[in-house]
Formats: sequence, C-alpha cells, structure tokens
Amino acid sequence: MRIRCLATTAVGSRVPLLKSSEEVVARWTAALPASTRSLVLAGYTSATGGIVTDPSLLTIPLDDHGFHRGHCVFDTANVANGRVFGLTMHLNRLLSSARLAKIIGEEPPAAADPAVLRSIILQTIAATGRRDSVFVRYWLSAGRGDFSISPKRCVGPTFYCVVHEDTHSAAGERGMSAVMVTVPLKPPLLATMKSNNYMLNALVALEAEAAGASMGIQLHEDGRLAESSVATVGVVDRYGWLRTPPPDAILNSTTWARATALAPNLVGSGVIQGCKVGPISRAEIEEARELLSFGGGWVEPIVKLDGRLVGSGRPGPVWLALDRLLREDFGNPELTDEVPYENGVYDHST
Amino acid sequence: MRIRCLATTAVGSRVPLLKSSEEVVARWTAALPASTRSLVLAGYTSATGGIVTDPSLLTIPLDDHGFHRGHCVFDTANVANGRVFGLTMHLNRLLSSARLAKIIGEEPPAAADPAVLRSIILQTIAATGRRDSVFVRYWLSAGRGDFSISPKRCVGPTFYCVVHEDTHSAAGERGMSAVMVTVPLKPPLLATMKSNNYMLNALVALEAEAAGASMGIQLHEDGRLAESSVATVGVVDRYGWLRTPPPDAILNSTTWARATALAPNLVGSGVIQGCKVGPISRAEIEEARELLSFGGGWVEPIVKLDGRLVGSGRPGPVWLALDRLLREDFGNPELTDEVPYENGVYDHST
Repeated sequence: MRIRCLATTAVGSRVPLLKSSEEVVARWTAALPASTRSLVLAGYTSATGGIVTDPSLLTIPLDDHGFHRGHCVFDTANVANGRVFGLTMHLNRLLSSARLAKIIGEEPPAAADPAVLRSIILQTIAATGRRDSVFVRYWLSAGRGDFSISPKRCVGPTFYCVVHEDTHSAAGERGMSAVMVTVPLKPPLLATMKSNNYMLNALVALEAEAAGASMGIQLHEDGRLAESSVATVGVVDRYGWLRTPPPDAILNSTTWARATALAPNLVGSGVIQGCKVGPISRAEIEEARELLSFGGGWVEPIVKLDGRLVGSGRPGPVWLALDRLLREDFGNPELTDEVPYENGVYDHST
Repeated sequence: MRIRCLATTAVGSRVPLLKSSEEVVARWTAALPASTRSLVLAGYTSATGGIVTDPSLLTIPLDDHGFHRGHCVFDTANVANGRVFGLTMHLNRLLSSARLAKIIGEEPPAAADPAVLRSIILQTIAATGRRDSVFVRYWLSAGRGDFSISPKRCVGPTFYCVVHEDTHSAAGERGMSAVMVTVPLKPPLLATMKSNNYMLNALVALEAEAAGASMGIQLHEDGRLAESSVATVGVVDRYGWLRTPPPDAILNSTTWARATALAPNLVGSGVIQGCKVGPISRAEIEEARELLSFGGGWVEPIVKLDGRLVGSGRPGPVWLALDRLLREDFGNPELTDEVPYENGVYDHST
C-alpha cells in the first residue's frame, strides 16, 4: 500500500477513504516519527482500558474535549531505581487542577479515583521494564462528548498516560541562560492549574530560544517575578534567603515544595538563611546572588540573565547543596512508590 | 474478548497489555460513545493522510503538541445545499491564528498550504455524502514531537478535520437567556486567535448553565463588553446603531464580518442606522434595544440578561432582518465552495 501523507498531498489530489482498520493502523505505523519511536516506551488510554508499547498505537479520540477545547489537566513524575518519586503529591495536584477546571467536583468520580490512577500509572511504567531514565506524564480530561463548548454532554473523564525516555539534560555546572520575555501571562486561574492550555508557555520557550537562551522568564506588569514556561524561578537574595513568588498566580511547584522541605538542612550549615515565599521585584531578581529553576524534579542554576552574569556567573553554593538534596530525595522511601515489575519485567498475562 | 474500561478498573486490578493492533481497534470500537457514533460522519487526520467514516477510528497521536501543550488552532464552516459557506474567510482566520501561535511563519509550509487544506476539507465533507445539516471543524497543530514545552523538535504541522451532524439548535423566536459571568478573560493574544486553549471558554459555558442561562457573557475589568464563550455579542443601541466591541481583545467573528457586509441593506429601510465597532459600556449593554449573539454562522437574539428582559423581552426587528440576510447569504455563490460529491456520493475509488 502506498502511504500518502499531508505533506505530500498536492492540491486537488484525491484523499483516500480508509475503509478498514487495517489500512488506518498501517498508516499510523508508517507515519510514526522516528523520534517518537525512540522516545515513547508505553502508554495507556482509558478509551482502550489497556497499555500499548507500540507508540504508533498510542492515539486518543479526536472527540475528546481535552483536545478540541483544552479541557484537560496533567501532571508528571520521575522514575528512578525502579521507584516513582512523589506520585502522591503529583496526583494531589492533578486532582486540584481538575477541580479548578471543573473536570471533577470536590469528590472525584470513579474514573478519576486517585488510587485507580496511581495503579494505572505504576502498571504503565512497569510495562516498559525500565527502572531508570524514564519519565511519566498523564492527563485527566473532561472526556469524550460532542464538539460544543460546554462539556455537559461529555460521557465522563478520560485518562491518558505515557512513559517516555527522560529527555531532561541537566545543565548542572554549565548553568542555564535565561531572558525576560514579553509573552503575556495567563490569568491566575489558568496559571495555578497544570492544564494543557499551555500555548503561552510554548511561546515563552520559543521567544527564549529565538533570543539564544535556554529559558524564558515572565514578569508581572509591575515587574514582579512570575515564572518560567514550565518551572518556578527562585532567587537567593543578597541576605541569603531562598525565595520564590507566591503560588497565587503561578503553578504550585512540587519541586519547590520538596526544596522547602529539605532546606532546613541548609540553614544550620549557613548555606541559606531560610526559605521565603512572597513577591520578588525586578531589582531583587537582578541583584540575586543565585537564580534557580525548579521544575520536573530538578533544580538548575541560571547563570546568565538577559546577557548579564548572575552573581559570579557560575553555579552557586545554594544550587550545589539543593541539587544534592533533591537527588538524594529521589530515593526517599516515604516519597516513592515501588513499580510493580514482575520477574524483572511486568507480567501482563491475565 | 472482555473489554475493560477505566470506569470499571478497580483499584489494584490488572491493566491488560494490548499486544496487537486488533485488540486496540476492538477496544476503541467497544468504547465508542453512542453519542459520538450518531454525531460524527467522517474525519481526516494527517497522521494517516486519509478519511475515515468509522468514528471509532478517528483518533490523533498522543504525542501531538496540539493535545499535550495546546499548541493548536482551529476553525469551522457551515455546509448547506451541498456547498460550504465562507471557507475562504475561515481558512484565512485559521492561518492568521496559526501565525499568532507561531505554528507557521508568514508563509505557510506545504503542510499548511490553504489550497491543500481546502481540498482536504471539501473531500472530507464529500465522504459523508451529506448536503445539509452538517458542520465541519478542522485543527492545525504544531504537530508531533517530544513532550517538552518547546515545539522545536516537532516534525511539522498536523491537520485534523471532522464533519459532524449540525447540532446548532436555533433559539430563533424563543430567544436566548444570558448572564454575566465571573470567569477571567484570556489575554488578548489568546483571545484574538481561535485556538484550542478554550478551557476558560468552557468554564464560561459551565457558569452560565449553572445559572440556568444558555450563554455567558464576559466583561472587561472596567465593565466593557468582551464576548461570550464562542460568540461575539452585539448590541442595538438606543440610537439604532448595531455595535460590537473592537477585535483587539476578542475573536474576530466571521459571522459578524458577514453581518456588517450585509447591514447596509438594513440602513436604507431604517432598521438600523449603521454598524459601529468600538467599546461598549456596561450601561450600554443594559439599555440596549436588542442584544445579539453572532457565532457559528448564525445570529441569535438574547432576550434576557441576568434575569431582566432585554428591550421588549422578545426578539427584535434587527435580529429578524439579520437572521434572514444571513440565512440567504449561505447560498451566496461568491462565498461558497461546491463540495466535490461524485455520483451523489463522493467516489473514493482511486
């Protein structure tokens, strides 16, 4: 069968009618980008109620409000040493986002029972057989319905999960360069939930890349620090306090939550004076001893801002200490769930 | 095969590994909501480069930035009498939205060539064999890539199209009831593009429904009229001018564009004084002779606002006249494309 794709569809050429599921599946397989094939290890969709390890079969219904109306929230987690880190706090945030989005009410329905979601996530990771260097993402959507703007005819939440190669590349000792960007902020309601309404976040990343930087930072209109596209930005101020903006207009970072939980270890040794959450002015950003990015479980040092060196221009002692604490934290048994691998690789026989 | 779906996945129960595409397809078929089966007539995805008429096969890749990051724009069109109305203006807006979203640059790439998109849309409609009472929607996305926030590794835009039963239910003589809602506005950049970052629009609809109204209206902080969830709101002011807010912070409505093009017909007969685009204060909304909703190709009369009657509380003469003009306009040969049905139903043999 000759596979024709959009990029080569000439004006006026005939678009084939795919009369069998075999034709459709063959075309998905043919269209799978090589990058997706090497990236995606396993995925789950509630439309099938099952896990696939063939990325070309990892598709979601077009009629999902999560796609066509952005009525969808998501969260993530790190996998290390065969354990998932922080799933409880990530699932709590997922449900908190879903409540803000009115995808669920105060009590989640059976389809969004966090115990069920946790089990699905763990089993999807297990299906990869991988114990390290993978990352898991999952989405809870208003679900399948008609195409009108109201989700009132949706038949209930849908859930999707993907486990993929961890593409996080630690900047580490090199540090990151950041620029202030002009992309407008989301209103606080959207900014405080982790939804897939992330077009502006993508534009923040694009504007930073166009400026030759590795991350973009958004400010409020009055110059106060907001956040980066997918990370909370913290400063170590001139007095040695580790500070981040209040979470009333930015996403409540789970990485920052862990950092504040671990930071008392750094007070005794004098690395920091303590942690503070509150407004950070543009002047305080510019005179910071260190600028830090908290996201995806990692802390990264920002060593350049708008072309100028931050502090000494090298990763500082607070970053170094926090990086060590957060890496150790990945092994914290109280914060990790064991992935239910069986015989090395999860046994799917039923 | 027993089909298990998320809603019945008990805590701790085994999620099956779907080892063959046949299992996956069987589960989609089993999971297809009855409402989708009766609603969706045909669909196209660039992942397959083909058209399907089985809605259970109308799925999109999970790794599309249009889903997981909301990096996607869309538009729609009406089909009547075997012709598509206004496709040129809708495709122009789609590409305009895609430029704002940086999905395409000034010149669209081959995968977003409007002539190609037009042909795909027309052929997808033709595949339904339906000449009336269907509606077409289509999405242009940043495309498949990795799961990071930047679309820089996306392999190029994807395009999706669905043709479904027209669920528009004309309020007509009954009129609609509206309420002012408290949902925050999108920033102008998002408001002026037709994207799938429509969570706030969905929340506008939900808040209105919770208040027993059929539509919600958003105001700017200073009380100026903004828009409804998926419609432009116009007023007929006390002097007889038909007015809408400026399109610098709301979506540029194609229905309103047609109304303004047709409105001169109503000036001569004295139905209106003319059309104006400019700020509309809350007081002007409240003292309007008529309130109109422009969207999806239709004009609807809003007869009740926040529980109070608008004007006489009945659809007014401007609505009546515009409704007739817009309905006639659907047959305007200069604004319609003929759907390439062949032998009554589009012939897909190649």
